[in-house]
Amino acid sequence: MTTSASLVDAPKLGIDKQWRQRAASVIPAGMYGHQSANALPDAYPQFLARGEGSHVWDADGNEYIDLMCSYGPIILGHRHPKVEAAAAAQAALADCQNGPSTLIVELAEKLVERVSHADWAIFAKNGTDATTMCVTIARAQTGNTTVLVATGAYHGAAPWCTPNPTGVLPEDRAKLDHYRYNDLDSVVAAVERANGDLAAIVVSPFRHDARFDQELVDPEFARGLRRLCDETGAALILDDVRCGFRLADGGSWEPIGVEPDLSAWSKAIANGHSLASVLGNDRFRDGASKIFVTGSFWYAAVPMAASLATLDALVDEHAIDKMVAAGQRLRDGLDAQAAHHGLSINQTGPVQMPLLTFAGDGDFAKANLWANESVKRGAYVHPWHNWFLNAAHASDDIDRALLATDDAFAEVARVFGRD
Amino acid sequence: MTTSASLVDAPKLGIDKQWRQRAASVIPAGMYGHQSANALPDAYPQFLARGEGSHVWDADGNEYIDLMCSYGPIILGHRHPKVEAAAAAQAALADCQNGPSTLIVELAEKLVERVSHADWAIFAKNGTDATTMCVTIARAQTGNTTVLVATGAYHGAAPWCTPNPTGVLPEDRAKLDHYRYNDLDSVVAAVERANGDLAAIVVSPFRHDARFDQELVDPEFARGLRRLCDETGAALILDDVRCGFRLADGGSWEPIGVEPDLSAWSKAIANGHSLASVLGNDRFRDGASKIFVTGSFWYAAVPMAASLATLDALVDEHAIDKMVAAGQRLRDGLDAQAAHHGLSINQTGPVQMPLLTFAGDGDFAKANLWANESVKRGAYVHPWHNWFLNAAHASDDIDRALLATDDAFAEVARVFGRD
Repeated sequence: MTTSASLVDAPKLGIDKQWRQRAASVIPAGMYGHQSANALPDAYPQFLARGEGSHVWDADGNEYIDLMCSYGPIILGHRHPKVEAAAAAQAALADCQNGPSTLIVELAEKLVERVSHADWAIFAKNGTDATTMCVTIARAQTGNTTVLVATGAYHGAAPWCTPNPTGVLPEDRAKLDHYRYNDLDSVVAAVERANGDLAAIVVSPFRHDARFDQELVDPEFARGLRRLCDETGAALILDDVRCGFRLADGGSWEPIGVEPDLSAWSKAIANGHSLASVLGNDRFRDGASKIFVTGSFWYAAVPMAASLATLDALVDEHAIDKMVAAGQRLRDGLDAQAAHHGLSINQTGPVQMPLLTFAGDGDFAKANLWANESVKRGAYVHPWHNWFLNAAHASDDIDRALLATDDAFAEVARVFGRD
Repeated sequence: MTTSASLVDAPKLGIDKQWRQRAASVIPAGMYGHQSANALPDAYPQFLARGEGSHVWDADGNEYIDLMCSYGPIILGHRHPKVEAAAAAQAALADCQNGPSTLIVELAEKLVERVSHADWAIFAKNGTDATTMCVTIARAQTGNTTVLVATGAYHGAAPWCTPNPTGVLPEDRAKLDHYRYNDLDSVVAAVERANGDLAAIVVSPFRHDARFDQELVDPEFARGLRRLCDETGAALILDDVRCGFRLADGGSWEPIGVEPDLSAWSKAIANGHSLASVLGNDRFRDGASKIFVTGSFWYAAVPMAASLATLDALVDEHAIDKMVAAGQRLRDGLDAQAAHHGLSINQTGPVQMPLLTFAGDGDFAKANLWANESVKRGAYVHPWHNWFLNAAHASDDIDRALLATDDAFAEVARVFGRD
């Protein structure tokens, strides 16, 4: 399926560019949101054509080792046979009906069994649906209004949380206050400012803000948040949309022993099929039962069949072990390459959700060049958003990607000089 | 496939009830949102198992003529062969990738061609994503903040629009003001209250608020909204989520010659596959290009393949003509039956999106009994939400449904007496 020739120096036929011209007529700015290639260096394709395991192909037929995994959803590999078979079997019966299929109950049961803090589940479509629902449930249950979020953290693209407030009102962010990630004193100060009206503290499993080095959570910080929520009655909301099931078989803070009250999930829970979920404990069940949230496709059965198969395969195939092994091989390889080329880099975050930055590269000039040269040579990385490994990344895939990145480091050293 | 025996008096094996008990443990209130059967009479199944054309089967194996069509998404019939073939063909390549497939451009082009006011398209997952995006674009483009909506109208379940404000802040509805549907004077008064700060007027193609008789739009009212938006520079936003492509091959107000600036779509545009869209004209393209909205699955290719096939089939198969014919047959039959049983009913809305209410039935006691008895006999209707026809409803299906409703009217007459 893969040949070296197709990974290196594949001809650019310009098909992607032709489609971009057509897109410019009928899509504002040619594309929108996180999958717009407008903000990426010029070798990035806008349009993708095919995926299989750890490989993707663009509209021009160029093949890549996929280190972005659709920005997270692909955790077992593209078109995982068991997931796709489960989805197709359900599609042969029904998807969107007048009510959910019984799979919704099986999936809720499996998530409650898998995620230690969870007593119940609600399903939706977008990660933003899930984070917004968590905040609504917290306010419904506590009767309080103030919600704390970390400065710069991404929790979705609804008016209350979108990072670009164009078209959004200041009122949409009313009752939000901010703390600094891993700085418990800043949380204590915000709790004091809330003055008894605290509904929730929202937190990511680790700091994975785009354009910043990633930062693992300090377990003492996590325990401090739990304690503050216990003292105030507020909800501890873990936004596990991006990390969920890549760091642990359960919730991402289970390894450090801190349980949230509510958690938001999406991306990887159905290996690319559109699904999101809120999980919660019994203390917030009543609040969850009183709010009104819904969507035309929230009960659709096919993504739930895919999710059940995904949850089984994650455990059966030791997906996290595989992603950690592949991610470590990649990190070690990149470190060695950068050292060889005399370049100072930072690799941060869990190895299965890596980010590479260059020292003193405030404008991402080196990162953009390096990522672009990597993409040209068949390694689909990102210059300023964390990457994602999936369980289909074999050692051979990582080694192929490293062939590309080595040449890319050489280009950075040639253009910018050795550090 | 269908037998009379399976439509009438099918045994209730209690499987649905068993699953409801399991659901009660792991889903708040046992179910949430518009597909919760908690608010419906007791014969309604919570769980659906299968759909084919105009027929659906519940978890107990009971068969129904489906007059709800998944609350709108099913417009060509369940599991339409061409739509499912297009979806499966795309699924064999990829669905959720690092970027959209080129189908996003083809679909945007087709919608721009099909819907007269549209110069561009953006895609999302939920109808609520689309209505919220319209409001955000209107505010971004105009620099104004006030948005007018009709009292009681449903435009989604986000904090700014959910009909149940539990867990939602008053600030989430800041800068919303209200008018009465079909009452232009009330709009003029609201425009005056906005005092030069009007961003948008949001309106449904006709008044389809749950629990009220439906009301077709007065073309003079629609033209008045257009004129007010032209005078103020505000966006006229048509919420075509529920009606889209059931009333017209283009936008739902094309038959009356009124073009919105922005329109919100979802439900039927991919015959049950999860997709939503905002369509807009060039005056709002700049605003649309400046906001940040996104979702992990908004670029997924399979629902776009399904939508392209749906849009073709809608025209090729004269779907609206078929829905109108079936809907008229149903309306005529129900009128005759009610008269025969001495019951005074109101049938309102377009025949392809019908609603039946009983005169003087303020607490919906008659409607609940009638709908429950209809469902018991294999006609899946709704007591207080509009129904939906699809293009697979044959005369024979309508006649079978009418067998059920005739018995249901007899029950209403027996319990409540003739009017």
